[in-house]
Amino acid sequence: MVCLIGRWVNYRPQPDAVPNLRRRARSYKEIRMSAHFDIAAIGNAIVDVIAPAGEAFLAEHALTKGSMMLIDEGRARALYAKMAPGIETSGGSAGNTVAGVASLGGRAAYIGKVADDQLGEVFAHDMRAIGAAFETAPLKGGAATGRCLVNVTPDGQRTMCTFLGAATELAAADVAPAVIEGAAIVYLEGYLFDPPEARRAFAKAAGLARASGRMIALSLSDSFVVERHRKGLLEFIETEVDLLFANEAEICALFETSDFEAAAAAVRGRCRIAALTRSERGSVAVTKTEAHAVPAEPVDAVIDTTGAGDQYAAGFMFGLARGRPLADCARLGSLAAAEVISHYGPRPQVALADLAAARRLTPA
Amino acid sequence: MVCLIGRWVNYRPQPDAVPNLRRRARSYKEIRMSAHFDIAAIGNAIVDVIAPAGEAFLAEHALTKGSMMLIDEGRARALYAKMAPGIETSGGSAGNTVAGVASLGGRAAYIGKVADDQLGEVFAHDMRAIGAAFETAPLKGGAATGRCLVNVTPDGQRTMCTFLGAATELAAADVAPAVIEGAAIVYLEGYLFDPPEARRAFAKAAGLARASGRMIALSLSDSFVVERHRKGLLEFIETEVDLLFANEAEICALFETSDFEAAAAAVRGRCRIAALTRSERGSVAVTKTEAHAVPAEPVDAVIDTTGAGDQYAAGFMFGLARGRPLADCARLGSLAAAEVISHYGPRPQVALADLAAARRLTPA
Repeated sequence: MVCLIGRWVNYRPQPDAVPNLRRRARSYKEIRMSAHFDIAAIGNAIVDVIAPAGEAFLAEHALTKGSMMLIDEGRARALYAKMAPGIETSGGSAGNTVAGVASLGGRAAYIGKVADDQLGEVFAHDMRAIGAAFETAPLKGGAATGRCLVNVTPDGQRTMCTFLGAATELAAADVAPAVIEGAAIVYLEGYLFDPPEARRAFAKAAGLARASGRMIALSLSDSFVVERHRKGLLEFIETEVDLLFANEAEICALFETSDFEAAAAAVRGRCRIAALTRSERGSVAVTKTEAHAVPAEPVDAVIDTTGAGDQYAAGFMFGLARGRPLADCARLGSLAAAEVISHYGPRPQVALADLAAARRLTPA
Repeated sequence: MVCLIGRWVNYRPQPDAVPNLRRRARSYKEIRMSAHFDIAAIGNAIVDVIAPAGEAFLAEHALTKGSMMLIDEGRARALYAKMAPGIETSGGSAGNTVAGVASLGGRAAYIGKVADDQLGEVFAHDMRAIGAAFETAPLKGGAATGRCLVNVTPDGQRTMCTFLGAATELAAADVAPAVIEGAAIVYLEGYLFDPPEARRAFAKAAGLARASGRMIALSLSDSFVVERHRKGLLEFIETEVDLLFANEAEICALFETSDFEAAAAAVRGRCRIAALTRSERGSVAVTKTEAHAVPAEPVDAVIDTTGAGDQYAAGFMFGLARGRPLADCARLGSLAAAEVISHYGPRPQVALADLAAARRLTPA
């Protein structure tokens, strides 16, 4: 176990085109002492509709297993009509991560757009009920709260079709500077690259984070997102991102290779830390000079992998925000992911803080 | 095992005040041959919001564990704001029973009132997705879809607070004669005794069922419902009900005793069959002359008892509608109840037909 934090203390961002907007990057200790939140996350606020499905269902509806596809309202209605009975639960990648951080005992804030409707109320309730700060004003008189139709096959894999709805209206004005500037790590989901307005919010958050010396974390979200926005994502990673999350398919898509080792080698040095997840093969956290492989946490049965990556990010970032060595961050990620794949739904059903304590992984 | 069906074949209802409205009660075989549905159920259409809660939460909000309390919208909002994050899922007692019958491979129809809103859409989707007929027109411009706030304590017990919303607007006009007259068993939930308009729908359904020689089943629903409507329920049971479902608390409340054996003795002969459930002590099906005790189906861990009684009724009625002996009906009920208490949510997550087949309990 090598502690990366010591290195990060001395980390100074490279100057960019607008150096005057940047303050000196703070030391880790400075960041931690000055942060109201461990994590502030920005994402597409989405309610999940989760139902079991057979392989034939995916084939019939031309869905690629394990992926996320954007659909419009008409397609969402048609697909929903064909789905099995399900449960509804607050989701959204970064929202799930915030729930995980809160479950670990962390202080988290969320920025995302729901509508002024029943599912929007559910989303806001769940966010506040876990103790997360969520003050984004709901959209009135526009699209409905976004929803993600999640079809879970018997192997536990989830295939997602998302109608973004109100989430696309997340605007730069929704990015509250106090939230961004008050967080040790600012976490952005790659899905935000899809809606143009949200992308502006994304850019504003990154700018504020950089200017206030906060750490910027990014999740690649989905290999199709990477295909759609490869150039923009690469540029953003190289210029702004301190901590990158990607699964095997995503990192391979980013570097247009089918060889994980090649992709992992390619990402090293492009950002401070890359945390790469490999399902049952665990994860590897790499920096320019180090690599820490951590095995997956064993589970009795994989029921539904929805939220696995989100919870991994929650565990990893909570560890990092609290000064744990990188390998422990990865272990916290694995622990959180294992909990969420052992039941339906993308958020923890038990207090992750208790699981972490049992493993002596509780950060200070 | 004694087959009750033989006796029921010869069952003729007593004449009532309006004998001209009644046709001759059909034989069991006649009923079965002429029925489009095994079960037609009428109930309060409700979406459940299910969340874990501690014992202290119940005490703080003056909730009686295991009961159902009616609350208004204001109280629902206030209570929801205090609840833990949860999942939303279609519920409603009779709706859950219909889902269970469909999961067993039965043909089922449902009558109940949702609003023209997101949760109403979810309810209707889930009903149709399981293959049940559900044609009740949604309420427009009125109250929102009813919801039940279900707080699940660590012992798996559920405590429910229901805001009926649109469900109270279920009217006699919503009771489609073709549905009632086309079902082998017409199932009514005792909760319908609460909203005055729904009670008229209830009376109409009972009248239609009786007039067309259908079997009438009733669930007592909740001991507080029994306290509120004891006289009306007793009268209805004695004059109209063929098959009564009650748990220990409910049957004891009905006969104002704390002695289950006394209550079970009191109900015998007041209706054709009474199926009395006793949680982990199993159930007993009694008629005037017979009693069949069946043990509870063992489960690894009781997670959430929401829907246990509803699924018991589903198994029992499906067995009865398909001509199984009473003890097998009770076994089917236990099997269905065991599945639903082993996870969060009031409806089956696996095909009950498969579980029944594995036990050789599959009706023809």
